[in-house]
Amino acid sequence: MSDTITVKAPADFHVHLRQGSISELIVPHVRKGGFDLAYVMPNLKPPVTTTEQALKYKEDLERIDPNVEYLMTLYLSPELTPDEIRKAKEAGVAGVKSYPRGVTTNSDGGIESYETYYPIFEAMQEVDMVLNLHGEVPSDASANIHVLNAEDNFIPHLFKIHAAFPRLRIVLEHATTAAAVEAVKKCGPTVACSITAHHLALTVDDWAGQSWNFCKPVAKYPTDRQALQNVVTEGHPRFFLGSDSAPHPPHAKSTSTPSHGCAAGVYTSPILLPLVAHLLESFGALDKLEGFVSTNGRAFYKRAFESQKHGRASVTLRKVTGKLVDGQYNLQTDTLVPFWAGKEIGWEIVDEA
Amino acid sequence: MSDTITVKAPADFHVHLRQGSISELIVPHVRKGGFDLAYVMPNLKPPVTTTEQALKYKEDLERIDPNVEYLMTLYLSPELTPDEIRKAKEAGVAGVKSYPRGVTTNSDGGIESYETYYPIFEAMQEVDMVLNLHGEVPSDASANIHVLNAEDNFIPHLFKIHAAFPRLRIVLEHATTAAAVEAVKKCGPTVACSITAHHLALTVDDWAGQSWNFCKPVAKYPTDRQALQNVVTEGHPRFFLGSDSAPHPPHAKSTSTPSHGCAAGVYTSPILLPLVAHLLESFGALDKLEGFVSTNGRAFYKRAFESQKHGRASVTLRKVTGKLVDGQYNLQTDTLVPFWAGKEIGWEIVDEA
Repeated sequence: MSDTITVKAPADFHVHLRQGSISELIVPHVRKGGFDLAYVMPNLKPPVTTTEQALKYKEDLERIDPNVEYLMTLYLSPELTPDEIRKAKEAGVAGVKSYPRGVTTNSDGGIESYETYYPIFEAMQEVDMVLNLHGEVPSDASANIHVLNAEDNFIPHLFKIHAAFPRLRIVLEHATTAAAVEAVKKCGPTVACSITAHHLALTVDDWAGQSWNFCKPVAKYPTDRQALQNVVTEGHPRFFLGSDSAPHPPHAKSTSTPSHGCAAGVYTSPILLPLVAHLLESFGALDKLEGFVSTNGRAFYKRAFESQKHGRASVTLRKVTGKLVDGQYNLQTDTLVPFWAGKEIGWEIVDEA
Repeated sequence: MSDTITVKAPADFHVHLRQGSISELIVPHVRKGGFDLAYVMPNLKPPVTTTEQALKYKEDLERIDPNVEYLMTLYLSPELTPDEIRKAKEAGVAGVKSYPRGVTTNSDGGIESYETYYPIFEAMQEVDMVLNLHGEVPSDASANIHVLNAEDNFIPHLFKIHAAFPRLRIVLEHATTAAAVEAVKKCGPTVACSITAHHLALTVDDWAGQSWNFCKPVAKYPTDRQALQNVVTEGHPRFFLGSDSAPHPPHAKSTSTPSHGCAAGVYTSPILLPLVAHLLESFGALDKLEGFVSTNGRAFYKRAFESQKHGRASVTLRKVTGKLVDGQYNLQTDTLVPFWAGKEIGWEIVDEA
């Protein structure tokens, strides 16, 4: 058995790179984690709703680390127009992200009805931009909708949008349930699905009383995790990695005071490729690593490595024993704690140097 | 509409009074919360497994507050014998608590198979002691058993023990699901069910990312909460309050470091009767308050107030506006934060003085 594995140009098709001082720390973690392409979420404060903002944000990111290809997205909101979509496309913006209102970090401006946005979707289909769906409906106790079934209750919306815009490329982001996996499989070739690393590892038991594992969508039941692992193992070409890596400092993850809940998000960027290798190996899918972290997503997004401006043509991992994930990273005035802090991880990136 | 309500001799049929310095703070909270009878859980370190320990523990509690009637319990474990059961009964010990292994605070010594304990149950049935069941099976990802279905997967055990010992009085403790409510209803008159105050208020959404609302069993789905509220509203005589009030200091509830999860437990003792009144009023069941907090449980446990040595014959609540639950209570070296800290509560106890 070989103790190294080489994957072609890994690409993270869902990542939160924030803004301000926290960006300075976390943007370089994309490359540290083995990735030179980052599909960047637009849920800043204020959200990225115009081409200009997206280009400005891209400049900020490139200033921090010019060695990564940033694919930018806009935040779906009433401000968006079909004209802006065409302008964004021309400027190289890759997609539009839809957040249901209030379900995760900085989603207060999220959408409540999809039909309102059909003119936008029409324009996106026309110019071939990708629609990225945060696939959860808001909790509603009177309808028995809660964090555990919020994703499954979103599936009819996915089907409806896909039926109305069959040529529109859609990604159901960070799927967490067996039903969501089945739903995406049933759709045509224009619908794909991103899966995070942490949802391949966690179930509801892991975030019960442990806020560091709390993210949205929440990790579901063991059978759901199994379905995610199965579709990766199967090597289905429309399923690929999107880390949803989302940093929150300890004070935001802590619940030492009871007046507020903790922030939703798991931070995987700095260990992403080794972590995914570790997980895929744990369920016998290491041979699907390259498809999951690179070729599947690149094919769907039409981002063959050859068209990328820079970055590593490949990244090599080596098997390792006794290596522990870093406990924390220091910010100027705070710290960040990665997923699996202090836990043993079986792979590390071989430095090219 | 009257703005006071008087209930006869409230009784809390499930409470954790701990040991050592924390007891000094929390034992007086039983009375503060409106209760002069406490059915005391035996999950100390080490657990209360003998009559002698139980009597010693009772002395400790009486030294702290002699105005409360403490009903003592033993912890079901291999050390327990039928002889010890008879001895315990003679000494006034009221019940035996069964914890499945590892499901909650100090349950590492919990049981794995109920058949092993049939000789104990036989003796308990013979001398008319109560069996208190923590009704959860341990999580097992390979069988898709997790914190959300751990209680429903326990129900077959309840049915089996009840069928084997039809005269044994059994309480399914802190039920959280519609299925558990239905299961208890289906059983004969020897099977009852305790319900906590917090499970009448919370759903899974409330403890997702908010460890102060994390307890075992975890609060379930909105339909489950509705089933608990319904059976209280119905006034079913075999359903009554057991607060499961369980204090943990902030450092144990905090998750600022990711190396461990937080302790399971919600602390309701100091506000218990006002809280229950507030909740029952919120879903239109205030007329069932006395049954739920006093007469139903007392009837099942054969503890008519007239047989109690001391305590208030009744407690009066008055409707109040603008009153907030205390933010915290100070221990010698730590603090305790009650459920609903800082939230408005609509009832308060009228001091007799």
